[in-house]
Amino acid sequence: MVSKVSFPWLAELLGYSLKSGGKGIRPALTLLCGKLYRYNLDTLLPMAAAVELLHVATLVHDDAIDKSPVRRGRATIFKVWGEDKAVLLGDYLFAKAGELTATTRNLSAIKLFAQTLRTISAGELEQIFNAFSLEQAYEQYIHRIACKTAALFILATESGAVLSEAPEASVKILSEYGYNLGIAFQIVDDILDFVGTEAEVGKPIGSDLAQGTLTLPSMLLLERYPNDNPVKKLFQQRDSHEAINLAIEQVRNSSIIEECYATAADYCARARRNLDQLPDKASRQSLVDITDYVVQRKK
Amino acid sequence: MVSKVSFPWLAELLGYSLKSGGKGIRPALTLLCGKLYRYNLDTLLPMAAAVELLHVATLVHDDAIDKSPVRRGRATIFKVWGEDKAVLLGDYLFAKAGELTATTRNLSAIKLFAQTLRTISAGELEQIFNAFSLEQAYEQYIHRIACKTAALFILATESGAVLSEAPEASVKILSEYGYNLGIAFQIVDDILDFVGTEAEVGKPIGSDLAQGTLTLPSMLLLERYPNDNPVKKLFQQRDSHEAINLAIEQVRNSSIIEECYATAADYCARARRNLDQLPDKASRQSLVDITDYVVQRKK
Repeated sequence: MVSKVSFPWLAELLGYSLKSGGKGIRPALTLLCGKLYRYNLDTLLPMAAAVELLHVATLVHDDAIDKSPVRRGRATIFKVWGEDKAVLLGDYLFAKAGELTATTRNLSAIKLFAQTLRTISAGELEQIFNAFSLEQAYEQYIHRIACKTAALFILATESGAVLSEAPEASVKILSEYGYNLGIAFQIVDDILDFVGTEAEVGKPIGSDLAQGTLTLPSMLLLERYPNDNPVKKLFQQRDSHEAINLAIEQVRNSSIIEECYATAADYCARARRNLDQLPDKASRQSLVDITDYVVQRKK
Repeated sequence: MVSKVSFPWLAELLGYSLKSGGKGIRPALTLLCGKLYRYNLDTLLPMAAAVELLHVATLVHDDAIDKSPVRRGRATIFKVWGEDKAVLLGDYLFAKAGELTATTRNLSAIKLFAQTLRTISAGELEQIFNAFSLEQAYEQYIHRIACKTAALFILATESGAVLSEAPEASVKILSEYGYNLGIAFQIVDDILDFVGTEAEVGKPIGSDLAQGTLTLPSMLLLERYPNDNPVKKLFQQRDSHEAINLAIEQVRNSSIIEECYATAADYCARARRNLDQLPDKASRQSLVDITDYVVQRKK
């Protein structure tokens, strides 16, 4: 008796949030992993949709939390409809993603879905609790991006494997592939926040620093110049556009970006090695190609 | 590889949000409904916990959205930790509730859980989209509170029925009981926002009006005085503490509260009639008693 009435305003909100021109890499991973084994679109398609919806939902909440006006070159839900509606739309999308996952009737996929949402929220909380803190080790950075980004890649690949009835060992391998790919993906994201252009990236450059988030490039910059460092100044004074620009310039004029790309490439190499052990099918080659794309992408 | 590391700050946030002194009526419903049939605590307990966690999560988000400083006489998560952490903690609790539901391994319960979160989010969005609108019919009010409140009561009762392997007809009856009880519960909540005391209710009186939410008492007041009406003035000018106090006074000095209680009592009577058709066990009497409690409660 509750579900019968529709909400006229919902179509607009949903349409706007879903037509965001994302890359669709995560649902593609679910389908490609599924194609390595028993390719059953009746379960793989709703799962792929759930993965993408979960991704969109986390972005909608992130933008509300960060008060970001622009993403992918468009005004955010937060900017157009306000914080309250962004929070509730995110909740709605989480729920819809959960419902889609439930239609697979696969308890492992359902459990993994819920775990993933919890891991992502914990990772985002970790980032906020450590905002403007200069005391962060490399391992902490990797753990944080494992939670906030790689977890969703793991959901994408592992659910594809589970739903296509892959052998247990292959499920584990595709989960690790998702982890390695996700870490590489986020490192490149963090690089692009220094070397990208606003037109390509679709949002202002330097936004991580502005929010007090230490990423691999800024961590390396701190290591290289422990004393007179714009990141240190920025994190202590909390508001200095000049310091952000100086940090970006220093990173660009150093070998830091090269080093970061080497780390990302290393994770991609691990991801490719994961794939060596899997059936030699066309979709495996696509999964290899994605590892190249992740490092080469400009947005 | 993601889930191993713990988050030291999380214990504090979770502890605070869960020690909130709620009434625990929703998880009690799950257990009582489960006791009518095959009482299996291995699934009923995690489900009852999931129902309560989902409830807490929606409150944490509601307080962030409404910027409410106080709930149940205590500072809210929003007030103590800020909006960003409240949004993410709510997400975390949704996920944990989903994981608990998944441990029941019951696909009907899992599907219902996800549907419920979607219904609640849609109901809250409906409320926000209609804030400060004077054009709302009684049916719209009932539909809104069915989504934002009764849906969770339905989850509580129906999941208890499903997990205890109740016959299909009984599942439907307990779902309807949850609906009727939930509607009555929310009508009483809306009454207490006019006639309660801040000490009893645990938050400022008149907060619905302050947020532009039309509830049954204010709808009846609008009907009774269509022209010179403080609610009309408040909704048009958006900020008038005086108009809120006048509206509260007018409602208290009329038969409106009596009328609202009669409506709530009517839904409780329906809920009791639902129970007539179920096994005559001690837990059925407890479910009857809860219908009395819902109308008599002062907080």
